[in-house]
Amino acid sequence: MKELEDKILEKGQVLNHDVLKVDSFLNHQVDSQLMYKIGQNFYEYFKAQPITKILTVESSGIAPAVMTGLFFQVPVVFARKHRSVTMNSDIFVADVYSFTKKVNNKISISKNFLQSSDNVLIVDDFLANGQAIAGLTDIINQAEATLYGIGIVIEKTFQKGRQMVEQQQIPIKSLARIAGFQNGQVIFAEE
Amino acid sequence: MKELEDKILEKGQVLNHDVLKVDSFLNHQVDSQLMYKIGQNFYEYFKAQPITKILTVESSGIAPAVMTGLFFQVPVVFARKHRSVTMNSDIFVADVYSFTKKVNNKISISKNFLQSSDNVLIVDDFLANGQAIAGLTDIINQAEATLYGIGIVIEKTFQKGRQMVEQQQIPIKSLARIAGFQNGQVIFAEE
Repeated sequence: MKELEDKILEKGQVLNHDVLKVDSFLNHQVDSQLMYKIGQNFYEYFKAQPITKILTVESSGIAPAVMTGLFFQVPVVFARKHRSVTMNSDIFVADVYSFTKKVNNKISISKNFLQSSDNVLIVDDFLANGQAIAGLTDIINQAEATLYGIGIVIEKTFQKGRQMVEQQQIPIKSLARIAGFQNGQVIFAEE
Repeated sequence: MKELEDKILEKGQVLNHDVLKVDSFLNHQVDSQLMYKIGQNFYEYFKAQPITKILTVESSGIAPAVMTGLFFQVPVVFARKHRSVTMNSDIFVADVYSFTKKVNNKISISKNFLQSSDNVLIVDDFLANGQAIAGLTDIINQAEATLYGIGIVIEKTFQKGRQMVEQQQIPIKSLARIAGFQNGQVIFAEE
């Protein structure tokens, strides 16, 4: 997605070997117009699928997911993050390890909002090591729902998330794919 | 906003004397179509103001705020919540006490995303005791920005938030105003 790549080049900050900071338009300050076009792009890519629900994780996934839900006209559910969570028969729970923050978090989704009849599209802001995707996939399996695809705003192709997703043969669309960083500059992957 | 009131009557759950659970369309599962119309309503009400930025608090404020930003065509900034936060010259920090969770949280916004030249519209999901609004107002004052108005999705008129806002003479628009609960039913305030 050209407009997203341009925005990353213009506003993204490369912090070290593998961290890209995009909090001026995605993670803290949000560009709603861009999110709208991101939602439209995911819709164009996955619209042939019988999607009934969009899943994401709070907080940075919410904006692109809600815009995607607007185009699909289906509900969006954001998983909640917890440091710890007590056993509770009303929620699905999965583990998510954060490599950037080096903490193990739990994510949860109420059983009221994910049924075995649901056909799910996951939307998330980043794909790096794939931990959030693995946690959401775990919850989808617990619910016996069906995962139809994954829409990622920014993928870092040099980390292990892409490989994990491909092994599971889940259709994935990343709107920007970053192959690496060179002298503080973002290098995009070839299509 | 009639459609919002209808949704509250249809989907809201009254849990006790003063708690309304709306996690089927606002707080956990999100109805994007409804959020879009909520954004449109805030825009219609505040469009004469020279708004340059929408502020909210993660996570439940993000969906209505991002849709409001879509109509205003201005950036949306969501304050982050922390249990504790170390002193940091790069962020504005304020206290927010949660009456429902009975914990004192900090919220923060990067100084990069709020300037003294900014004209702010706050958008949030709930107005009850007004603690989140007070925290955001504190941050706006620290930044020496100007608060032009507050847009609330659901207001509980019987708690002290409304009074606090009116004392500060800040224009406020609540799209649904709940006067109380009777026998598990929601009673809306008269216009």
